[in-house]
Amino acid sequence: MPILLSIGSYDPQPWLTAMGREAPEETIVLAPDGPEDPSIEYAVVWKQPRNLLTRLPNLKAIFSLGAGVDHILADDTLPDVPILRIVAEDLTNRMSEYVVWRVLDHTRQGRLYRERQTQRLWGEEHQPAAHAITVGLMGIGALGQDAAAKLRALGFQVAGWSRTPKHIDGITCYSGPDGLAAMLGVTDILVVLLPLTEETRGILDTPLFEQMKRQTPLGAPVLINAGRGGLQNEGAILRALDGGRLSEVSLDVFETEPLPAASPLWSHPRVFVTPHAAAASDPDALSSLIMRQIANHRAGEPLKHAVDRSAGY
Amino acid sequence: MPILLSIGSYDPQPWLTAMGREAPEETIVLAPDGPEDPSIEYAVVWKQPRNLLTRLPNLKAIFSLGAGVDHILADDTLPDVPILRIVAEDLTNRMSEYVVWRVLDHTRQGRLYRERQTQRLWGEEHQPAAHAITVGLMGIGALGQDAAAKLRALGFQVAGWSRTPKHIDGITCYSGPDGLAAMLGVTDILVVLLPLTEETRGILDTPLFEQMKRQTPLGAPVLINAGRGGLQNEGAILRALDGGRLSEVSLDVFETEPLPAASPLWSHPRVFVTPHAAAASDPDALSSLIMRQIANHRAGEPLKHAVDRSAGY
Repeated sequence: MPILLSIGSYDPQPWLTAMGREAPEETIVLAPDGPEDPSIEYAVVWKQPRNLLTRLPNLKAIFSLGAGVDHILADDTLPDVPILRIVAEDLTNRMSEYVVWRVLDHTRQGRLYRERQTQRLWGEEHQPAAHAITVGLMGIGALGQDAAAKLRALGFQVAGWSRTPKHIDGITCYSGPDGLAAMLGVTDILVVLLPLTEETRGILDTPLFEQMKRQTPLGAPVLINAGRGGLQNEGAILRALDGGRLSEVSLDVFETEPLPAASPLWSHPRVFVTPHAAAASDPDALSSLIMRQIANHRAGEPLKHAVDRSAGY
Repeated sequence: MPILLSIGSYDPQPWLTAMGREAPEETIVLAPDGPEDPSIEYAVVWKQPRNLLTRLPNLKAIFSLGAGVDHILADDTLPDVPILRIVAEDLTNRMSEYVVWRVLDHTRQGRLYRERQTQRLWGEEHQPAAHAITVGLMGIGALGQDAAAKLRALGFQVAGWSRTPKHIDGITCYSGPDGLAAMLGVTDILVVLLPLTEETRGILDTPLFEQMKRQTPLGAPVLINAGRGGLQNEGAILRALDGGRLSEVSLDVFETEPLPAASPLWSHPRVFVTPHAAAASDPDALSSLIMRQIANHRAGEPLKHAVDRSAGY
């Protein structure tokens, strides 16, 4: 009973190798055998092509190769079987590294110091202490909660916003539309780790920026998006930067990826770009989790980390 | 009974204001009254001039305005009274922010991503996970231990070296000259938080770099010095960078401060310079600690955080 691996936007080879190493008894295939392939029960996918999964009449589950599943749900031919997210310590840790790194680079004035260095200028910039900064997290699931704990260990104040109410030790939690406005009103650095759903698409836009604080210890607020590019309106971000509503921005995700060479984000002095690399999926660490889930399911155990399709994550 | 405030290398005004706010009942003076001033019992200093403190026959204690005391001990006319270091949560937290910021900027390849951004190039760099990196701390006193705990919270492996043997949970501890070689042999990123003493002066030099690992997940090892500039040979650091023995360097301290405009460190692409700002002394937070110590001592209590002059810290 082979397992289908379908990767729509990058080289599947490292995953093929890692999955084979993890479960040498399994056969991994890159395409169904014929127009209909009843032998495939499990699919492991990233941006699968339309009408691919409809060719698998005995499909029991779809595994995402990343934390998000918007790349799977975008397929309007998706069969009605469980979709499983990755909840992996490795991926969570890497995301928290990115968040802490970017938050500190903003509070410690990395940009200004690098600028001063090119000018051979000695002189202190105002670096607000961690306790003087409130990081507001949009999205406080597995990723957000881990980032929050690590930011708190460094002394930052942490607020968090989620769709449904949550109570998490050490985080001032907000929820719903009113809660969002309230959180933005206390946030110095906004860190976005939301899933991309119909509710969140385009949320990082002028109306949201207008709800943010006018003045923070860093001047205007800072925006860090490591969720999905579809959350953001890049034109609005640039206008907010140039209009003084945002002081600095770190973006790991973009409306179009790879970010087109013509995008003005590349050259904006107060934008820091990384190529969707905040929490790179490590084939070894993640294959192990997926192949274990498949083995457990074959043995009659329930699947973990199922997506709620109505919520979109 | 006035308190003397003597600052040899920057504006004393913020300290004067903060100390006055903290203890309005005290009189703070910037110089002794006459060639000999028996009224002064406490001096609060940063790089005091030679022969200044000898003019205070009733001096009971000298307070440092920073974590280090080498700037006080450099005075060969220093009277034999207790010298007190600052051990302040604010200063410790700021130093740990700097350490975590620099460590992450190196492991997350900040320099390469900034370079790619200027070239509008989309493409992932190898970013080793925190658990794959051993940070070796030279100096595991109050500052080193706090930095270690925060690095561990992010998943980094932490080793530490000190003059005398220590046992600290979660840190692989080394001591003495043999211990230093052993620690350098497992260290990917070397973080230096040592005091400047006769034993440590110039320790960051070619012989030490030669004891470091040849290969780390980041290429050659990384050096971060936030201790004192007198610990380092800057020519040797540049040779180690260009000879492939060090991959990247973050320096907050320099042999000569301000770092002269002619220094090649400013323009080396793999050196990151900050102007001795890793843990800026906050006048409000630190004045409070010093003025409380003075009040307690006037009330007959012992002084805390006394320097061991023979050790030099």
